[in-house]
Amino acid sequence: MQRYKITISYDGSSFNGWQLQPNGPSIQEELEKVLARLTGETVRVHGSSRTDSGVHARKYVAHFDLQSRMKPSELRKGMNALLPSEIRILQVNTVANKFHARFNAVEKEYRYFIWNSEVLPPFLRLYRTHITKPLDVKAMQVAGKQLVGKHDFSAFSANPDRKIESTVREIKELKVCKRGSEIVIIIRADGFLYRMVRSIAGYLIRVGTGELDVSTAHKILFSRNRTAVVPTAPPQGLFLWNIKY
Amino acid sequence: MQRYKITISYDGSSFNGWQLQPNGPSIQEELEKVLARLTGETVRVHGSSRTDSGVHARKYVAHFDLQSRMKPSELRKGMNALLPSEIRILQVNTVANKFHARFNAVEKEYRYFIWNSEVLPPFLRLYRTHITKPLDVKAMQVAGKQLVGKHDFSAFSANPDRKIESTVREIKELKVCKRGSEIVIIIRADGFLYRMVRSIAGYLIRVGTGELDVSTAHKILFSRNRTAVVPTAPPQGLFLWNIKY
Repeated sequence: MQRYKITISYDGSSFNGWQLQPNGPSIQEELEKVLARLTGETVRVHGSSRTDSGVHARKYVAHFDLQSRMKPSELRKGMNALLPSEIRILQVNTVANKFHARFNAVEKEYRYFIWNSEVLPPFLRLYRTHITKPLDVKAMQVAGKQLVGKHDFSAFSANPDRKIESTVREIKELKVCKRGSEIVIIIRADGFLYRMVRSIAGYLIRVGTGELDVSTAHKILFSRNRTAVVPTAPPQGLFLWNIKY
Repeated sequence: MQRYKITISYDGSSFNGWQLQPNGPSIQEELEKVLARLTGETVRVHGSSRTDSGVHARKYVAHFDLQSRMKPSELRKGMNALLPSEIRILQVNTVANKFHARFNAVEKEYRYFIWNSEVLPPFLRLYRTHITKPLDVKAMQVAGKQLVGKHDFSAFSANPDRKIESTVREIKELKVCKRGSEIVIIIRADGFLYRMVRSIAGYLIRVGTGELDVSTAHKILFSRNRTAVVPTAPPQGLFLWNIKY
């Protein structure tokens, strides 16, 4: 038995997220189907996080075990030849059997891309959240800074169908950058709650439009209660950017 | 009667090119449908060029006449609200009735984008031609230079179902640039023959892989005969980039 670590890039536009779903294609399902065809084995692919339907990944990490001995380069070429062009294997490495894509991750980076002008270029329509109302980037930066650090982020999460151990996470960096019509929210943390990045993005967009005051972040955070004040921003602007082990 | 000039950006991936076709949606058809809904008039939209199925446009120009008086900004907003997100109206101007999108164009620029490495990032799959074999950019530059100037480009064109007046065109600039894995062919000319850019791109790619010698350009050019030596490069790497009037 050999464990493999794979680094994947995918366009989530036409997938029901990472995880196997009864109601539509998922990234996990595509990978497992292709591994079964390549090796004849029934393979379970373990992902580093559950990305939502429509969310993209620049560098996603997963692992799986194979009975058949395959060279990493062979596996990469074989998988890319069979996968749809929306999913690409960037890298394959053999790893120790104790490596776990989810539990060994020490830091994740997400980037949320907003296009802030009247017309969204057609080539970016699947990869940007389009906000026509001018956003106050300085206000977004001030509000974002208040979220940096170790906090209970319950107020910036959605309730998934599962109990989680702790709702405390540490945001190590939160930057809001503007280049022309593009605004990017860059967030690095030790981990993220369910829908946490999209909730923070939704909150910051509301601060940017002036609907919420920059000083509300702490109040919302300390309430520990998700309310309608914090909207969930649309999925297509979100990219899982990087994972550190 | 007021003549309007529109500047359009479109993702050609799911369209049968610019021109009205019996067998599938075209950019022209989408624009005419939307104008009919907005104004109640039967409007003919005249384009600056016939782009092929799958070819994109960063800045395409067209014109049409309306009986109804509409403000350019109103027209832009109204059309963008009704058009699919693959087609965006960037600009609308009122112009003199003698303006013609096709006949008044004095220069066009096309760019052909190649991704030259083993793995094509999923977010670029609709906008790049993927060539895994390493390309010799210097050889492509040398071969490209030989095509600059006023020539009969019959050998770098495909035979459409129409007679054309002249097969002489003037290439004012032909550059081949490399940035990382991306290779861009930039071509400016007073006009282009049918499939001329894709034929030149196909030829330059073959020079880049070493299948053709850099010195063949003049020989092919002077033959005035399109042969299988010059392949037509795939459409998805091609962008109509700019038009000068």
